Amino acid sequence: MSDSNQMSAHKKAVLAYSGGLDTSVILQVLKEQGYEVVAFIANVGQDEDFEKQAERARIIGAAEVFVEDLCREFVDDFIFPAIAGNAVYENRYLLGTALARPVIARRQVEIAERVGATAVAHGATGKGNDQVRFELGYAGLGPHLEVIAPWKDPEFLARFAGRTDLLNYAEEHGIPIEASSEKSYSMDENLMHKSYESGMLEDPSLAPKPEMFDLTRSAMDAPDTPARLEIEFVDARPVRVKDLDSGEEETDSLALFAMVNRIAGEHGVGRIDMVENRYVGIKSRGVYETPGGTLLHFALRDLEGITMDREVLALRDTLAPKFTQLIYNGYWFSPEMDFIRAAFDQAEKMVTGTVKVQLFKGGLQALGRKSPVSLYNEALSSMDIAGGYEQADAAGFIRIASLRLRGGRHG
Amino acid sequence: MSDSNQMSAHKKAVLAYSGGLDTSVILQVLKEQGYEVVAFIANVGQDEDFEKQAERARIIGAAEVFVEDLCREFVDDFIFPAIAGNAVYENRYLLGTALARPVIARRQVEIAERVGATAVAHGATGKGNDQVRFELGYAGLGPHLEVIAPWKDPEFLARFAGRTDLLNYAEEHGIPIEASSEKSYSMDENLMHKSYESGMLEDPSLAPKPEMFDLTRSAMDAPDTPARLEIEFVDARPVRVKDLDSGEEETDSLALFAMVNRIAGEHGVGRIDMVENRYVGIKSRGVYETPGGTLLHFALRDLEGITMDREVLALRDTLAPKFTQLIYNGYWFSPEMDFIRAAFDQAEKMVTGTVKVQLFKGGLQALGRKSPVSLYNEALSSMDIAGGYEQADAAGFIRIASLRLRGGRHG
Amino acid sequence: MSDSNQMSAHKKAVLAYSGGLDTSVILQVLKEQGYEVVAFIANVGQDEDFEKQAERARIIGAAEVFVEDLCREFVDDFIFPAIAGNAVYENRYLLGTALARPVIARRQVEIAERVGATAVAHGATGKGNDQVRFELGYAGLGPHLEVIAPWKDPEFLARFAGRTDLLNYAEEHGIPIEASSEKSYSMDENLMHKSYESGMLEDPSLAPKPEMFDLTRSAMDAPDTPARLEIEFVDARPVRVKDLDSGEEETDSLALFAMVNRIAGEHGVGRIDMVENRYVGIKSRGVYETPGGTLLHFALRDLEGITMDREVLALRDTLAPKFTQLIYNGYWFSPEMDFIRAAFDQAEKMVTGTVKVQLFKGGLQALGRKSPVSLYNEALSSMDIAGGYEQADAAGFIRIASLRLRGGRHG
Amino acid sequence: MSDSNQMSAHKKAVLAYSGGLDTSVILQVLKEQGYEVVAFIANVGQDEDFEKQAERARIIGAAEVFVEDLCREFVDDFIFPAIAGNAVYENRYLLGTALARPVIARRQVEIAERVGATAVAHGATGKGNDQVRFELGYAGLGPHLEVIAPWKDPEFLARFAGRTDLLNYAEEHGIPIEASSEKSYSMDENLMHKSYESGMLEDPSLAPKPEMFDLTRSAMDAPDTPARLEIEFVDARPVRVKDLDSGEEETDSLALFAMVNRIAGEHGVGRIDMVENRYVGIKSRGVYETPGGTLLHFALRDLEGITMDREVLALRDTLAPKFTQLIYNGYWFSPEMDFIRAAFDQAEKMVTGTVKVQLFKGGLQALGRKSPVSLYNEALSSMDIAGGYEQADAAGFIRIASLRLRGGRHG
Repeated sequence: MSDSNQMSAHKKAVLAYSGGLDTSVILQVLKEQGYEVVAFIANVGQDEDFEKQAERARIIGAAEVFVEDLCREFVDDFIFPAIAGNAVYENRYLLGTALARPVIARRQVEIAERVGATAVAHGATGKGNDQVRFELGYAGLGPHLEVIAPWKDPEFLARFAGRTDLLNYAEEHGIPIEASSEKSYSMDENLMHKSYESGMLEDPSLAPKPEMFDLTRSAMDAPDTPARLEIEFVDARPVRVKDLDSGEEETDSLALFAMVNRIAGEHGVGRIDMVENRYVGIKSRGVYETPGGTLLHFALRDLEGITMDREVLALRDTLAPKFTQLIYNGYWFSPEMDFIRAAFDQAEKMVTGTVKVQLFKGGLQALGRKSPVSLYNEALSSMDIAGGYEQADAAGFIRIASLRLRGGRHG
Repeated sequence: MSDSNQMSAHKKAVLAYSGGLDTSVILQVLKEQGYEVVAFIANVGQDEDFEKQAERARIIGAAEVFVEDLCREFVDDFIFPAIAGNAVYENRYLLGTALARPVIARRQVEIAERVGATAVAHGATGKGNDQVRFELGYAGLGPHLEVIAPWKDPEFLARFAGRTDLLNYAEEHGIPIEASSEKSYSMDENLMHKSYESGMLEDPSLAPKPEMFDLTRSAMDAPDTPARLEIEFVDARPVRVKDLDSGEEETDSLALFAMVNRIAGEHGVGRIDMVENRYVGIKSRGVYETPGGTLLHFALRDLEGITMDREVLALRDTLAPKFTQLIYNGYWFSPEMDFIRAAFDQAEKMVTGTVKVQLFKGGLQALGRKSPVSLYNEALSSMDIAGGYEQADAAGFIRIASLRLRGGRHG
Repeated sequence: MSDSNQMSAHKKAVLAYSGGLDTSVILQVLKEQGYEVVAFIANVGQDEDFEKQAERARIIGAAEVFVEDLCREFVDDFIFPAIAGNAVYENRYLLGTALARPVIARRQVEIAERVGATAVAHGATGKGNDQVRFELGYAGLGPHLEVIAPWKDPEFLARFAGRTDLLNYAEEHGIPIEASSEKSYSMDENLMHKSYESGMLEDPSLAPKPEMFDLTRSAMDAPDTPARLEIEFVDARPVRVKDLDSGEEETDSLALFAMVNRIAGEHGVGRIDMVENRYVGIKSRGVYETPGGTLLHFALRDLEGITMDREVLALRDTLAPKFTQLIYNGYWFSPEMDFIRAAFDQAEKMVTGTVKVQLFKGGLQALGRKSPVSLYNEALSSMDIAGGYEQADAAGFIRIASLRLRGGRHG
Repeated sequence: MSDSNQMSAHKKAVLAYSGGLDTSVILQVLKEQGYEVVAFIANVGQDEDFEKQAERARIIGAAEVFVEDLCREFVDDFIFPAIAGNAVYENRYLLGTALARPVIARRQVEIAERVGATAVAHGATGKGNDQVRFELGYAGLGPHLEVIAPWKDPEFLARFAGRTDLLNYAEEHGIPIEASSEKSYSMDENLMHKSYESGMLEDPSLAPKPEMFDLTRSAMDAPDTPARLEIEFVDARPVRVKDLDSGEEETDSLALFAMVNRIAGEHGVGRIDMVENRYVGIKSRGVYETPGGTLLHFALRDLEGITMDREVLALRDTLAPKFTQLIYNGYWFSPEMDFIRAAFDQAEKMVTGTVKVQLFKGGLQALGRKSPVSLYNEALSSMDIAGGYEQADAAGFIRIASLRLRGGRHG
């Protein structure tokens, strides 16, 4: 709660600012309401002119502007752990947007503490998932901060019923707005993915237009020659990617993620089109491009085959829907996430090794995998030699395992 | 246990007979041991000359030969329920072999009852999964039957230490054997898939040779023009498949499954290469071609998006690893499977509707989905109109949902 | 939402009416707001004068009064399934209050339909679980109905800030109120239990006063002679209870539940004192008396020992926390509950047999159990005879089961 | 496998020796088979004369005898973690025997390494759970060791078909045997519990004889005055127990566990009589006395109420059946146990505080609990004051939570 007993001059809000119409209007409105506004521009890898955004915030009247490059922590602390934990929402969505929210919320709370702000604000809609993800993040990390979410505020909603109201208000207050034709869908972009929803996508019986896509070529336009990459993981984190044809190699997490994004995108990997369930109970149609993430998921699942114990894998996959749901719903900073992460960290130890993958026209194919800590035992696996296995043992194994099934009922 | 008090002439065994070297030798050995042998040849869609196999069994001395077409029940009772239940073993394997075992075991036990046999026999190795699947099937359905598994019998193993011993024995006893060069891997084929393992595949760091594949073209050889299919499901079972280009349409379960197999195979869909965990504790490398199954999985997951309740989907997916494990390990006929199936049947009700899918060079893409019982509400989903949703409600929702996260500790 | 375009005379609400101060005031306020109010008094086994309550509702101005005896459906449709499904919230609470809410909500919606009401109303607080349980019930069964919950209405909350405001309003409007000293805690009573919370119980470091309890004697005051009951279950539902000392026997569900309540209460069985987690995120201290339910839980778990398959039991218990959470949170009428119930119904088949239990000073002790469909096999279980078990089989079983553990890592 | 090519003098086995007839005979038989035998006598708190056992081993011809006091590590490393993890097998059994097996197996493997043994041996039956627990322990910790389990060896089984054969053999070889009438049931005792099974207990319809029990008084013979204990936990481990009447207090883990055992036993706490499912597929009747363990379970669950987050508790309890099954089946030293323990360790942090419990005639009652890190917020919990909670928020919460339930189907 804001401390309304203080003088209004002491109300200070850190606004997650995108440079767009909505958050520009919100910045101005917050000023009207007596807040000193700090604009926080988060660079999570989206293709934007951050300096231009910062300048706009200053023009509107931000007391201070922070442009923060969160790319590395986004990759290291959120994207890679999610891939390691097999986080796939409702069997398909790789959580590109969901993963970007906690990294933004975390920095926003840090800035609020640094500048002595009393409030944090965001411009996410009241119908979506992002509002929840931001606000649960604030709750977990800065529970004392006032949360300002104008798109849930009845007064704000009444005042700005449509885009025209926003535009008029911007004009009245001299807020600089980019002349842009309204898109027929909304987008969100970051290092991990680009997502598309609403507008013309709201009819799930229709395919998206080919020209909508941005990070990936269509399978039909992808090169006729496959790419072949070698990906090395240590403890379930990628540490090296090598293009087996060009010899290009990256070992830095950010650089290698950019590299897999570029190559996978070129080969048409990572488009998803689905109807998913939002946390607020609404079914929603989303289209996603997650080129590099799709590739890393594929490679890591493959490596688990030779490095992860069977029962650990089964337990991990039993918990994976819950892990995924926590990410999707916004509970990254929660005790239940800590609980699951502790187990997953344990599972991910020793998922170390190298996988070769072929990329071709949207498809992925494993070309081989090896590991210094492989649990695969070629002799034991062999159908030709015993390798330390007594086939006769299986007789007892099956008789004991089936005892329960054979046992009749005895009154 | 066999009723050894009876005269040996009364020992009667139903042998799952494949026409190959192993089961031919076993047939002869069983006769030697005083069994009257009934040969049971199961047609689960593999590409074989069943009449030739039957003839061979008669030559060796089978008292009776049953050639049983199990294709329809395989599709209806096993393949479709597995797809409906999202059964994907260790994130990739669609269980083609595992699903064929219970349908064979079931018929084998039925024949044993029909002919008054005291035993059932199979030729599966003691290192693999299939022995378990057969024998758990026998245990569940015919617990009174003696189980004969020569590849776990120390005496048999000592006698037939290598392939040469089998060949020599066959020659001695006039068992007709097809002149075949030994394959550099072993295969299993049925309606759902073709699998490859062992031999040169035992080194997981090497990719399989392109010429090994049979049911699917490689992505590189697939047509340059995509196929577009419309697939209709009722209660999570496919009931109609239509080729949107040629107009070809099938509604019979067997015919439609053949159709999706053919078209998906042509377009390179459904190859999997992985290291998996056998029930007997061995990691094993398997390569699979599951064209139609892969397509139906994809389409059904897509349809679940608009027809399945979020919480039901989450619960189903939490249990799916267990469901899958039961199939993989051979527990189709078990009380725990009945438990899970009861829940899954409930989940699958109303997963009814139509999905359009594009197939291209090994990849699948959803082109749209619709359902007469869709839970998707376009107005509610819309970002432009309220559709009965009050954005202000979300404020309370989030505050309550985060109360637990915000709550400090109070001593 | 109410159809506010209609004339106010057409607004008609069914109010869950308890005869107490809160719902009496609400009845009057609804009238003020132009609603025609139908009072619905639910008899779920609490010790009340329902006719007096009905009379009071009429005096205040209820257009119609329904006094509904829900005891039998409460026992048959809610209490017994919950016990069968091992529903124990946070390891202790047997859900007495949570189970009564859906049976009330269901009838309330039925009455709303019968009388053509547009709204349903309840007097539960905005901090508790019951509001959620009522309103999720309304949502599942009567989604078109307006929900009136004054204790969440800011205007109502402002008008009635304390008990004095309610009493003054009652006096002003001639609402008849029982002269009662305010209790130092709040209570809820029904067939299954009596619960106590708030007031002096809000300090969890203090034990409740002995005189608070009503349905159970304290262990110290319980008889010095134990009671011995024989309880028969069919498909996990109790069908007969016999007092082995007095010979008293009941077979009707309602009568036998009253009988176990009486005898268990007399012997001090079923007191629970705990801090639990409410759905709205608040930790709350609750004290409960659930005599008969505690006894039936104990007896049924015991019977499962000889009648339920091991793996089914393990799966059931893995899902039991979710089943319990759904009941506690109010999701009885939901698709996820249908999913779980389908599986549990399957598990509960054949949990048939008889258990003898001794009750003494708050404790329960099994004296023996038997079943016509027992899975217990005395010969197999025996340590003295084989009973069809080959000990040597266990060698193979263990070697295979431990293969995974023994396997070193192989690079 | 033993390296049988080596000279017999090099075969050296560490035998888990109990001083009883079975392991005495096994010791002699191993010698006959050319093993140098090291006798390992594990003190896990059972009431035995260990020196007399050691003397007997020497007389029979053990090359070396180790008497090892494992009590402290049994309590610290196995009993307390199991209680912390809510390990209750099939809703009742507290795993007293199962927990003692890994601590014994661990030391046995350590001794084998210390003395350069090639084998480990035990005398557990082939029908029970203990053989599996021992051998999975050996597999996890000493996979290279030969495992000798005579009661699964067909030759041994044929030679010693009954107790008379063992007695005759003992007499022939001058093995000193205690003159003991054969018990009508078998027992196992350790610090945590005493268990009874087989013999006259094999009929589950009959109650055990009152005189069988040893660690607990019957409720009827328990004192008429309750005991009241205060138990302090830090991170879910008991660190202090105080008798609130006598003032007796213990803080050492071993001493406090002895104290709760003594007091709980005196007050009749901890008797369990059940039919459970063994890992080898047999249903078995077991009767247990676990006085102190029962008390600590009760107290710790109570403390979790004020200190453990709701969602963590729910996740922990969802995994508890698996955790319990791993202990029961013998998988303490396994990667899947490490996975679960990592999560549980996380959950157990901050389960710190004090619980007062009353013990009376077999029953337990909480008298209050408090914690320096309590999550319970009295103001928030209060029904009289807001405590930072806005009741109106619950309206939005419920509307959003029920959106999914209200949503009709839209074609």
